[in-house]
Amino acid sequence: MAAVPSDIEIAQAAKLKPITEIAKEIGLEEDDLDLYGKYKAKVKLNVVDRLKNNPTAKYIDVTAITPTPLGEGKTVTSIGLTEALNKIGKNAIICIREPSMGPVFGIKGGAAGGGYSQVVPMEDINLHFTGDIHAIGAANNLLAAYIDTSILLKNPLNIDPLTISWRRVVDISDRALRDVVVGLGGRANGYPRQTGFDITVASEVMAILALADSLEDLKERLNRIVVAYTYDGKPVTAKDLKCSGAMAALLKDAINPNLIQTLEGNACFMHAGPFANIAHGNSSVVADIIATKLADYVVTESGFGADCGAEKMMDIKVRAMEKYGIRPDCVVITTTIRALKMHGGAFPAVPGRPIPEEVQAKENYGALEEGSVNMIKHIENMKLFGLPVVVTINRRTSDRDKEVEMVHDIALKAGAEFCEPIDVWAKGVKCGTASA
Amino acid sequence: MAAVPSDIEIAQAAKLKPITEIAKEIGLEEDDLDLYGKYKAKVKLNVVDRLKNNPTAKYIDVTAITPTPLGEGKTVTSIGLTEALNKIGKNAIICIREPSMGPVFGIKGGAAGGGYSQVVPMEDINLHFTGDIHAIGAANNLLAAYIDTSILLKNPLNIDPLTISWRRVVDISDRALRDVVVGLGGRANGYPRQTGFDITVASEVMAILALADSLEDLKERLNRIVVAYTYDGKPVTAKDLKCSGAMAALLKDAINPNLIQTLEGNACFMHAGPFANIAHGNSSVVADIIATKLADYVVTESGFGADCGAEKMMDIKVRAMEKYGIRPDCVVITTTIRALKMHGGAFPAVPGRPIPEEVQAKENYGALEEGSVNMIKHIENMKLFGLPVVVTINRRTSDRDKEVEMVHDIALKAGAEFCEPIDVWAKGVKCGTASA
Amino acid sequence: MAAVPSDIEIAQAAKLKPITEIAKEIGLEEDDLDLYGKYKAKVKLNVVDRLKNNPTAKYIDVTAITPTPLGEGKTVTSIGLTEALNKIGKNAIICIREPSMGPVFGIKGGAAGGGYSQVVPMEDINLHFTGDIHAIGAANNLLAAYIDTSILLKNPLNIDPLTISWRRVVDISDRALRDVVVGLGGRANGYPRQTGFDITVASEVMAILALADSLEDLKERLNRIVVAYTYDGKPVTAKDLKCSGAMAALLKDAINPNLIQTLEGNACFMHAGPFANIAHGNSSVVADIIATKLADYVVTESGFGADCGAEKMMDIKVRAMEKYGIRPDCVVITTTIRALKMHGGAFPAVPGRPIPEEVQAKENYGALEEGSVNMIKHIENMKLFGLPVVVTINRRTSDRDKEVEMVHDIALKAGAEFCEPIDVWAKGVKCGTASA
Amino acid sequence: MAAVPSDIEIAQAAKLKPITEIAKEIGLEEDDLDLYGKYKAKVKLNVVDRLKNNPTAKYIDVTAITPTPLGEGKTVTSIGLTEALNKIGKNAIICIREPSMGPVFGIKGGAAGGGYSQVVPMEDINLHFTGDIHAIGAANNLLAAYIDTSILLKNPLNIDPLTISWRRVVDISDRALRDVVVGLGGRANGYPRQTGFDITVASEVMAILALADSLEDLKERLNRIVVAYTYDGKPVTAKDLKCSGAMAALLKDAINPNLIQTLEGNACFMHAGPFANIAHGNSSVVADIIATKLADYVVTESGFGADCGAEKMMDIKVRAMEKYGIRPDCVVITTTIRALKMHGGAFPAVPGRPIPEEVQAKENYGALEEGSVNMIKHIENMKLFGLPVVVTINRRTSDRDKEVEMVHDIALKAGAEFCEPIDVWAKGVKCGTASA
Repeated sequence: MAAVPSDIEIAQAAKLKPITEIAKEIGLEEDDLDLYGKYKAKVKLNVVDRLKNNPTAKYIDVTAITPTPLGEGKTVTSIGLTEALNKIGKNAIICIREPSMGPVFGIKGGAAGGGYSQVVPMEDINLHFTGDIHAIGAANNLLAAYIDTSILLKNPLNIDPLTISWRRVVDISDRALRDVVVGLGGRANGYPRQTGFDITVASEVMAILALADSLEDLKERLNRIVVAYTYDGKPVTAKDLKCSGAMAALLKDAINPNLIQTLEGNACFMHAGPFANIAHGNSSVVADIIATKLADYVVTESGFGADCGAEKMMDIKVRAMEKYGIRPDCVVITTTIRALKMHGGAFPAVPGRPIPEEVQAKENYGALEEGSVNMIKHIENMKLFGLPVVVTINRRTSDRDKEVEMVHDIALKAGAEFCEPIDVWAKGVKCGTASA
Repeated sequence: MAAVPSDIEIAQAAKLKPITEIAKEIGLEEDDLDLYGKYKAKVKLNVVDRLKNNPTAKYIDVTAITPTPLGEGKTVTSIGLTEALNKIGKNAIICIREPSMGPVFGIKGGAAGGGYSQVVPMEDINLHFTGDIHAIGAANNLLAAYIDTSILLKNPLNIDPLTISWRRVVDISDRALRDVVVGLGGRANGYPRQTGFDITVASEVMAILALADSLEDLKERLNRIVVAYTYDGKPVTAKDLKCSGAMAALLKDAINPNLIQTLEGNACFMHAGPFANIAHGNSSVVADIIATKLADYVVTESGFGADCGAEKMMDIKVRAMEKYGIRPDCVVITTTIRALKMHGGAFPAVPGRPIPEEVQAKENYGALEEGSVNMIKHIENMKLFGLPVVVTINRRTSDRDKEVEMVHDIALKAGAEFCEPIDVWAKGVKCGTASA
Repeated sequence: MAAVPSDIEIAQAAKLKPITEIAKEIGLEEDDLDLYGKYKAKVKLNVVDRLKNNPTAKYIDVTAITPTPLGEGKTVTSIGLTEALNKIGKNAIICIREPSMGPVFGIKGGAAGGGYSQVVPMEDINLHFTGDIHAIGAANNLLAAYIDTSILLKNPLNIDPLTISWRRVVDISDRALRDVVVGLGGRANGYPRQTGFDITVASEVMAILALADSLEDLKERLNRIVVAYTYDGKPVTAKDLKCSGAMAALLKDAINPNLIQTLEGNACFMHAGPFANIAHGNSSVVADIIATKLADYVVTESGFGADCGAEKMMDIKVRAMEKYGIRPDCVVITTTIRALKMHGGAFPAVPGRPIPEEVQAKENYGALEEGSVNMIKHIENMKLFGLPVVVTINRRTSDRDKEVEMVHDIALKAGAEFCEPIDVWAKGVKCGTASA
Repeated sequence: MAAVPSDIEIAQAAKLKPITEIAKEIGLEEDDLDLYGKYKAKVKLNVVDRLKNNPTAKYIDVTAITPTPLGEGKTVTSIGLTEALNKIGKNAIICIREPSMGPVFGIKGGAAGGGYSQVVPMEDINLHFTGDIHAIGAANNLLAAYIDTSILLKNPLNIDPLTISWRRVVDISDRALRDVVVGLGGRANGYPRQTGFDITVASEVMAILALADSLEDLKERLNRIVVAYTYDGKPVTAKDLKCSGAMAALLKDAINPNLIQTLEGNACFMHAGPFANIAHGNSSVVADIIATKLADYVVTESGFGADCGAEKMMDIKVRAMEKYGIRPDCVVITTTIRALKMHGGAFPAVPGRPIPEEVQAKENYGALEEGSVNMIKHIENMKLFGLPVVVTINRRTSDRDKEVEMVHDIALKAGAEFCEPIDVWAKGVKCGTASA
């Protein structure tokens, strides 16, 4: 068997369609778009109104068992599922989160899938993309500047500096900025204060952008940001600081969802990227509102395990889409034989330290069974939302048929509607029978 | 006479042509462009090669007498001159600097001309535009992070932290960041260091972007950035830190010049915006290289007075364009009656404090004559470069004919080839006869 | 019964003997002293040599059960025991720790006993006393200055600033100095560094002063102070910094033990005051060396509970006195009915919040018995050192005879040689029969 | 001629009288003293009352021409003059400033005279002495802690942190503390603030201690210390902070003047040491009040040149002693041939760089004459206060007789009553004829 090329080789070898063509295929016109080069576009929010009488697509949420440092392949599965649905003639669109530039220059790779399950143009996605994260950073930091300036200019809002929770952000992993003192140098510069910088995607503005369903809603949500408390313990908001208007202006393009494509030329909305550990971990509401009016199936993905991103999908994101009637029709739980064995104690995983292939692949049915309780619990949890649950086994070359069968049986017994080994991992999509 | 609408009213009322149409009119094809929405595009650098056999345009540099806090109207004059040249049938393109977002939320207005001498789309220009400044900020801050990280990771380059001159940047006027201590919180974060943030346009990366004539040249110039010294007093560069490659990657789109339009639908390259006080104060070399191959006349502008921006044009920017044979054919010195009177002591000017119209307009021929020595010296200076000098009087409604004549005579006597009152100020372009 | 006067009223009403008289009574001559006013003196270390053939006193260490926020009265017991021994004709000297000025201006009272069991002159003791703590602060801070200066002056010792564990000190409770950044302002001032100030008595110099048995030993111990590590992980000492000589010069008077008196005019050496939680919690070795040559009985005190200060006495201080043959002959464990009840759960104690008398005094034999296991364990621990253990019940007015008897019986059963209720608490010494 | 021993050799070889003997010789009793070892004592302030009917001594202020980095010998002259007066049978006491410990470990030597004109015990003086500077440091830093604590505890005085001018002090030259940020680490520690540490003698508390004539006056002066301003621009004092009482308690011993002796066994009050550049530069008022009641002549010294310390003596210190009727009867201006030549341009002086003996000693009458205008002006200035002026030439071995005569003649011509070469410099006192 020939070696599988690297992700970047695959991505660079891809022959992309102009994004205007992708748009046309899903029913968007050129005037609906703001182009960013040839292969990226922002879709204007006013299409929502024009499409409002279209039928709403089936909405599939891809999540996972408790993830391991090795990665289980949620994005790979989501993309693979979208490709597969389109291959069998279903009109499917994928909606996923956009990555931070920060980690690109650090350890992690980009966040656009892998192998033959990728979205493109890869390099643009991993750099400035359409500027959303820069806009978020600018809005976040404008608010931070307003806070310190307000305190300096006689502090009319009576802000207690020790209560300020609003930090600045930078789109780079810059440890030296985590804990800083600002405002040194005397009255020209301000009152000194200990604060810090987070990575831009961790900004509350990112979470807000992902949840707002219109520019008005965005402004309303920005208004409500609490940045500090007064000396009397009352909250101080971005509205109190008269900053939310300027922030919304900075975000007026960022709120338009980004349209790109999968390696097989299917439409992908990649928009907003809140983390699941500190925010709600799901891509934007506006992308899903538009996508569900343009396709038969919309595949989206929730960060981390089902107990984190998928529950937040139900508890937070679904509520923000309530009036549009969008609610998952099915949950896909991604799993790997390898991860279940690890959860069963077959081998330990230390972040950043690779596990030799022979260790990962070693036969251990006991650990596999024991680790499967993790999967069982996630299935049970998801069923509590009244949703049909599909389990996909992201199959690796070294997985034994017997292992796959074992997990298959456990999943069905636990209440999953369906359990299918897929074979996207570095080999291309073969999971053609998945349906919802 | 009806009141002149405000700048923003004029800009918003403007009917823009699609940028693809503007491009076509100057000889660019759609594949030469990366669109950023409908009215902005980046022009790919590879057009330089295709156009290299075209004749080179006449190249006009607009500068000014020593500027006052009131502004003399260099940009207004440059745009007006471009409109005028086109109106009389000359094919003219204007190349100007792009503004910082920072000041937009502060005191100064945007930097896209004024009245009927503007370039558009105004709001986009004043916000994220095509992301150049974000890219510069990211590249600048990546280098800053590399410095602190290198020191933290056993300081292999032997950097003396007290010698670090490379500061971080932010695209907002944020006083609290001017003087900060970074790296607090222990070994996980770094060695504490006192440093600060500048506004992004003040980054050396901006100056470099404006001078580089290709991506390779950009990388070469980034390589040579000196950020600190070793304990032995040897310079430490971005190349030593192995950061310049990543910086160039971040700037790969930013180096492509931005194409927009004037209010009358003529082509404008707005690209790079180094300040004239801390850098060389002229728009990008690449924009001029392309523009001079597409037009009969290229009008550009040098920041501050002729002794600052225009001299730096000759000493720095022209050298970077030497192999392209681009060199000003004419220098335009902008002046106003008001500024000359102020230079002559008619009234003081304090930044930020408006001067009543009746004070500005008061008759004072003595002060006007005395202040004109400033203009005379600038004319003399520019003539030392062997260039024909044109003086334009940016005429205001309150200027007396006798004042204009007086300045006209002084200018010609001082060696200017030509002195013409123009009337663009809030009234539209009437300086139809200017020629070079 | 007349109200007992406050501690300060009792102290101020006391008629003190000149310290020269106290000295004479224990066999010291005027030339052995450096007077600090009329009632304080430092005893020169050279007396050790003159007295070396004197017999060595019995050495009694007063400690306590696990202390509560209410205080069990170790110092009160130690002073009372000394007064009592002298009253029955035994020549007894008390050796205790000197207090920090810091807490005087904070919550805690001074640390010179209470009621009629005090040492005097109280106010002097609680302010500058004989300057020992100022000298310790100066020596500590000189070393800190040497460290930063060495780094600034080309760092010849290759100190890694992030490893510096030596902090500065101040003899005031000054929270704002706990976490600071020093070295701001550029090369004239140094390399910025995050550090902090501790209270002076917490300095390692204090612990060293308490353990050194001569000026030479002091210098040797100062030499060995580790302040930081090199970039290669090797320790950097005060000797490496060539600072220990100057530190010793600053401490040349401080090492001489301070002589004061009890309220009944018996000699008290009050010298050095290391905390028991961060250091070894016992008064100075030199004071004990001298006192044991001048008295029949020397009473000293170990900070906190027996498991802390008294074990450190055995493990650390006794070793430093090994060549002088000084070793406790008896351990006194101080207890109160109130504390035992609290350990038994009768009522909770929150630092800083007073407990109403009626709550403290409430009958609760179950809790008293249960809490007594604390005392039992401390008795067992101390017996492991092969020492006779005496328990004293620091009796309060509200204690019931039956409670006292109960504790008495438990103590004897647990192996204490002797258990005696004493009645020093605000009433004067009555524990005349204690002996060792 | 045998080599003159070094200052420290001379000081250590000195045979000191017990300080009680010195006290007795000037009329003080043992109860008037608080001894600090055998050779230092503090004199209790209540002696003022007992001595108030004694006649008041003649009061001589020793100052200098504009000083050079080489030092002109004010203290040496003052001591020498005192020794001389006593040698000729006059009862004279010297009152001088006490030195800072800080510089001892830096460049400068101690400040107790030199050669055979010293006061002793030298080492004690240069280390902790009687703890005055420690007490001043503690009082200064207590106030600083009160300020930050007040701000932290809801800022009842409405202090604007950016207006705080009260800095902390340390009695060591510690550059790293000059510019610091305090209050890091969150609410437990305080509001961050940029501030710094000065050397203790530079504290305003030192200036106050030097001017107060009683403990009550001290408290009153402490009350009036302005440490900051409110947000409304009103001053905030130590009294407002309720800190002055505690400060006075810390200074209750420090206000008592210190009694030591000269090498020839004459009494010296060495008390308080404010710098002349930032404070008033004269020793304490209380020392002079007591000394003038105990002697026929009191010699004191004013820091820097006559235009600085001596004018501040007249304008500030004399006013604080007004009710005691103490006012200089004579001013002595110290000069050297060397300094006058330098003022005349004979050679430059750079602080810290020694000037070769042959350069200093080179014959240059022109420069000497030209430099003498400096002396002339100081003589004139001092005469404006209506005082007789004596010039002393602190003669060096290399001075030529003709040079000395020349200066002598110039001084008399300028209005000095008297001009005498003295020969104390490293040779012993010979200026026996000086009188006032």
